[in-house]
Amino acid sequence: MLTHSRRTLLSQFTIGVDLGGTNLRCAAVQPDGEILEEFRVRTDPARGPDRVVDDIVAGIQEVNEGHKGHELIGIGIGVPALIVIETGTVKRAPNLPGFEDYPLRARMQEKLGLPVIVENDANAAALGEVWRGTGHDVDDLVMITLGTGVGGGIVYQGRIMHGFLGMAGEFGHITVEPNGLRCGCGNYGCLEAMSSATGIARMAEQAIYCRASPLLAEYKQQDGTVTPFHVHQAAQRGDAEAQEIYSRMGQWLGRGMAALVNSFNFPLYVIAGGVIGAWEFFAPAMFTELKRRSLTYRNSDTRIEKAQLGNLAGLYGAAYLPLLDRSST
Amino acid sequence: MLTHSRRTLLSQFTIGVDLGGTNLRCAAVQPDGEILEEFRVRTDPARGPDRVVDDIVAGIQEVNEGHKGHELIGIGIGVPALIVIETGTVKRAPNLPGFEDYPLRARMQEKLGLPVIVENDANAAALGEVWRGTGHDVDDLVMITLGTGVGGGIVYQGRIMHGFLGMAGEFGHITVEPNGLRCGCGNYGCLEAMSSATGIARMAEQAIYCRASPLLAEYKQQDGTVTPFHVHQAAQRGDAEAQEIYSRMGQWLGRGMAALVNSFNFPLYVIAGGVIGAWEFFAPAMFTELKRRSLTYRNSDTRIEKAQLGNLAGLYGAAYLPLLDRSST
Repeated sequence: MLTHSRRTLLSQFTIGVDLGGTNLRCAAVQPDGEILEEFRVRTDPARGPDRVVDDIVAGIQEVNEGHKGHELIGIGIGVPALIVIETGTVKRAPNLPGFEDYPLRARMQEKLGLPVIVENDANAAALGEVWRGTGHDVDDLVMITLGTGVGGGIVYQGRIMHGFLGMAGEFGHITVEPNGLRCGCGNYGCLEAMSSATGIARMAEQAIYCRASPLLAEYKQQDGTVTPFHVHQAAQRGDAEAQEIYSRMGQWLGRGMAALVNSFNFPLYVIAGGVIGAWEFFAPAMFTELKRRSLTYRNSDTRIEKAQLGNLAGLYGAAYLPLLDRSST
Repeated sequence: MLTHSRRTLLSQFTIGVDLGGTNLRCAAVQPDGEILEEFRVRTDPARGPDRVVDDIVAGIQEVNEGHKGHELIGIGIGVPALIVIETGTVKRAPNLPGFEDYPLRARMQEKLGLPVIVENDANAAALGEVWRGTGHDVDDLVMITLGTGVGGGIVYQGRIMHGFLGMAGEFGHITVEPNGLRCGCGNYGCLEAMSSATGIARMAEQAIYCRASPLLAEYKQQDGTVTPFHVHQAAQRGDAEAQEIYSRMGQWLGRGMAALVNSFNFPLYVIAGGVIGAWEFFAPAMFTELKRRSLTYRNSDTRIEKAQLGNLAGLYGAAYLPLLDRSST
């Protein structure tokens, strides 16, 4: 059930859990941020939340028993869902069938007898980047993860900013092009519709449809679909249309970022997600737009940087949650 | 030098100062928010900051002596300027000649021997609305003041959110119309260019120029200029073009508000400034746009309200500053 890779021990540790729609990762982490051991729990989300919780709990207990004499002080779990922070209940979870209105914290605490903190995955990732990633030298950052959708997290004074309903950081639905493409939310021109992986793929489809890029058409014929990765490859091979797609994506991203820089005046904004592989193709347009659209950006040394931790950000962030005083989370 | 209106006393009080470009108001305020006395200090900003400080200090000392046996615990002062929060130095102050790089806190503390807290006026106003205004029942709010420019303030967990350079809340430079009117900052389509008093006046000028509103043209001929107040009057008299101006202003404002609601998920957003007199003409378009542009707004009971305190907000906020623990300001 578990794959171990032991490290030296400190007297205390936490366990972070990153519960994805398709993937479940766990790590036992020391308070100094060193990973004691990473482990995977095999489970089947299709069998419902109770079964998933049982499997996670069994995994945690097994790891805990492997560290007798050392104290497991708490568990943090990141979930791709809207969380009711006060109760640790999962509220809306479009990618985790059966988890809607599920009292995740209560169920886990009951079985483990230990403090459990449930957090939205994008928030956990932002916290992870502050603890161990590109934000290790700041207390405040905004993180945007560009994937199929757009995730957002805000860390202020070292803590996650949740908003009154746990919905802070919905940057994906900031309008960046008032008459732009329709978004899944019903609005037009949301950042999520324009600059996410979905938005990039949609522009690629348009380019193929208009016969603007034979190379993208070729990729699509080969693979049956066209992805941001194809657009990146085409851009690298000098395809002007593919480069234009990333340039437009970067411009819209810059417009969204400008709204955030103007609002928060934080020292650091972190961009994450698979799309950052194409940084060289979208970042120039993003920075140009940021300079144009943000007086604050022009007059400060605000940093806009790539995330450093990749998939591990959420895991680190989850493990860090029990180390934070919970009074103001 | 002072005009008094004595009230009953508590044992402690603070003094709030609202140092405007043309106006200077002060109030001695009890910790429960009751104004003990309001007083004005006559001074001439043209004679430079040292002289202004001397006049304010003399006014404060006179009021303090009138309350012997009661303790003045500190002074808060709101200034239309960028403040270096750590030092209480005025950094940029376009409307206060001579105050640039002026160590206001140090100078006042030296003369008064009491703690002085210097704050940006829009931030102080936001804090005032939380303490005594429409936000008295919340800890978190965003406030937007629509005047000649657009001021913004953020209160989170009862405290002002400054950003790392004191520039948080620059909502006026959020782009709401990517190809809109040119803003003083050099960008196009900033909220400040579109929805401020200046933006409204500019739309009125355009309407007159295109002969779209004989009534606005008449007002302009009468008064030599056309103001948001004229547009409001014309709208009340049924002028379709004037109504359209407020409707467009409201749409852009709604677009900016949507970005804020999506980002912060605070329970309350407060709109202030003289323009709120025309609420009935711009609010419907604002709410329509907010619903369209914010998934969060559609799915929550987020409040968007008029400010309650008017000009007093900044004065209350300034008086409240010494009552807050300064450690995390």
